[in-house]
Amino acid sequence: MISKKMADSFKNSSLIRKMFEEGERLKAIHGDANVYDFSLGNPDQEPPREVLDALKEAVNGDAQGLHRYMNNAGYPQVRATVAAKLSRQSGVAVPPANVVMTVGAAGAMNCVFKTLLDPGDEVVVLAPYFVDYLNYVDNYGGRPVVVPCDRETFQPDVPGIAAALTPRTKAIILNSPNNPTGAVYPESVLRALDAVLLEAGARFGTTIHVVSDEPYSEIVFDGAVVPASFSIFRNGIVCSSWSKSLALPGERIGFVAVHPQDADADLLLKGIVYSTRVLGFINAPALFQTVVARAIDARVDMESYIDRMDLLHRVLVESGFTCRKPQGALYLFAKSPEPDDLAFAEKAKAHRILVVPGVGFGSPGFFRLTFCVDRRTIESSRAAWEALGAEYGLAAVRSGKR
Amino acid sequence: MISKKMADSFKNSSLIRKMFEEGERLKAIHGDANVYDFSLGNPDQEPPREVLDALKEAVNGDAQGLHRYMNNAGYPQVRATVAAKLSRQSGVAVPPANVVMTVGAAGAMNCVFKTLLDPGDEVVVLAPYFVDYLNYVDNYGGRPVVVPCDRETFQPDVPGIAAALTPRTKAIILNSPNNPTGAVYPESVLRALDAVLLEAGARFGTTIHVVSDEPYSEIVFDGAVVPASFSIFRNGIVCSSWSKSLALPGERIGFVAVHPQDADADLLLKGIVYSTRVLGFINAPALFQTVVARAIDARVDMESYIDRMDLLHRVLVESGFTCRKPQGALYLFAKSPEPDDLAFAEKAKAHRILVVPGVGFGSPGFFRLTFCVDRRTIESSRAAWEALGAEYGLAAVRSGKR
Repeated sequence: MISKKMADSFKNSSLIRKMFEEGERLKAIHGDANVYDFSLGNPDQEPPREVLDALKEAVNGDAQGLHRYMNNAGYPQVRATVAAKLSRQSGVAVPPANVVMTVGAAGAMNCVFKTLLDPGDEVVVLAPYFVDYLNYVDNYGGRPVVVPCDRETFQPDVPGIAAALTPRTKAIILNSPNNPTGAVYPESVLRALDAVLLEAGARFGTTIHVVSDEPYSEIVFDGAVVPASFSIFRNGIVCSSWSKSLALPGERIGFVAVHPQDADADLLLKGIVYSTRVLGFINAPALFQTVVARAIDARVDMESYIDRMDLLHRVLVESGFTCRKPQGALYLFAKSPEPDDLAFAEKAKAHRILVVPGVGFGSPGFFRLTFCVDRRTIESSRAAWEALGAEYGLAAVRSGKR
Repeated sequence: MISKKMADSFKNSSLIRKMFEEGERLKAIHGDANVYDFSLGNPDQEPPREVLDALKEAVNGDAQGLHRYMNNAGYPQVRATVAAKLSRQSGVAVPPANVVMTVGAAGAMNCVFKTLLDPGDEVVVLAPYFVDYLNYVDNYGGRPVVVPCDRETFQPDVPGIAAALTPRTKAIILNSPNNPTGAVYPESVLRALDAVLLEAGARFGTTIHVVSDEPYSEIVFDGAVVPASFSIFRNGIVCSSWSKSLALPGERIGFVAVHPQDADADLLLKGIVYSTRVLGFINAPALFQTVVARAIDARVDMESYIDRMDLLHRVLVESGFTCRKPQGALYLFAKSPEPDDLAFAEKAKAHRILVVPGVGFGSPGFFRLTFCVDRRTIESSRAAWEALGAEYGLAAVRSGKR
């Protein structure tokens, strides 16, 4: 007899799981190479040379105590290195004490919401959203309040957000570059949002924190600029990881940082460190704390991502689909040629194409594709996309460019 | 404005933190070497050779994809290796699917309670207890029901447990070898407990799961035998880690396993895998999954632990204190010479001895010491122990043996 809440969440999450299982079934029938699986966002690069070198250096050296407990908040030197980078990027002097090393960005967000939320507190979530944001808020009895982004530009609807704020609003989650849309929020939009949040906080006598989930902050294309959260949001909390920028998603290494001028900074940090312990994270993995600090300025090969993003975008558009080009992250978020994106995903499957329907991100009428797949998979999926497009009467446009 | 619940927990946990901070202050004044800090349980050995070799082999080889996401439950091969070891130890055939790799045993327990508990559900916790058990249960709205162990033998009080069971009892937490007492629960006690739990479950029409937290299962002394949980508890859930047996506490690598005959095994496993995702663990750290699987039969140097355990026990007893010799784990749990163990810990501090008062484990009248400290620290603390004992009129007994 598991918990009722858990049993309910199985019911709710069964849709996407079912799609995943059917995908596995398709692969078993047709072979992996003959199924065009764009559904999972697993960074497929190896970590950059600097990371692999730092890892070898740590492991092959004769340093003692690399694998022991440290302060739950992380190694002081590692926190200082992260704080220095944040300071450089934002122009705000971030003390090492304002950085806590975490088990990835997902672990960071759980610690933040455990600290912030009483049952019934509200957190604004922008749709489309990474689905587990709802769970991270719900884990602590919080209530996600969903505000849709503009359906063309995928930019936050600042007046819509303003209208959704209440005295119970404890935070808003931002994610730029965005999963799934690839949108990057420009400084002007963020400043307008900050003004709205500060005004509402002053009116309610509360603080509305900006929880910025930034694992994709270094994965940007075509010169897009990601403003540093701390340069804009005084009530900002940055959650991030090296999962994408250093291709270390399996190692669960990330951090949370609290703006030094945040009204509740000291209590927040105390709560986050306490949470990392009582939620069972205890501390961020020891060896990889050392490794990321030594390779703090490294980044995965962006050319490989840009090349595949361009290719997949071209294949889609040339097959007649409508898809905005992403400015960052690892996904394309395309318009479903019929309003029912679930029905579309089913039809795609008949062409051995696996995508995630937009409803899984709270935005029906779209579908998500990752370009973190083998280049040949993208190439060889072209005929399937064209056939799928043709089924909807979309006109294929061959550019000849491959 | 952090959550009210979090603010309350700060109030409650301030005692031990204050002691910790005062310890740091003492060290700053007198120097680390002149403060006898027995308060923290940080395994201080290096990992065994097999682990370091496996780590080097993995890192120096040319294998690809060592740091990527895998199935949230862990690498299939690693789960199979752990399942095979559990099968060997228990005589129960444990399928690999019944093992989920986790972020330490603490992460495992959080996933288990997230899966099991609805608000108001009860979990039996035996005192003295590792204090975060209360938090792990409370995180999911559960209510810890504390049942004291025998104050001489530190063995579970089976009739006392029977009397504490209700239709809301979802689980009991066992921890043998025990932190803080060092007690190992013999098979006869566990079988009696199993009978009581099965009988109550049958009477209430429920399943009472045995959540066995086993990070110390391989840290045993003087030939003590730790019965395999799965050989006794059909409704058993094992949570464990390699933090102690392989001296990897900072790396956060552990597992949870569900007994194949558990009435709810499939749902439990599904819930645990779901929980590892939504709680933000996502998966156990990738590289160390590989490493522990390759070194699955290794163990830290026990001689070093036994030697220091013996020495510290001798120092205590010869200074006139009453302390049962532990059968396992990394601690001594001694009787406070005055009923108020907080007052005792304060007096010890005046002799530059740092201990954790028993009240921190729900057992006033005792204090906990770890022997995971430098041998010289134990040696040089002797005079301080004697002086502290003399303050209470305890008679020092010199054996001459050092």
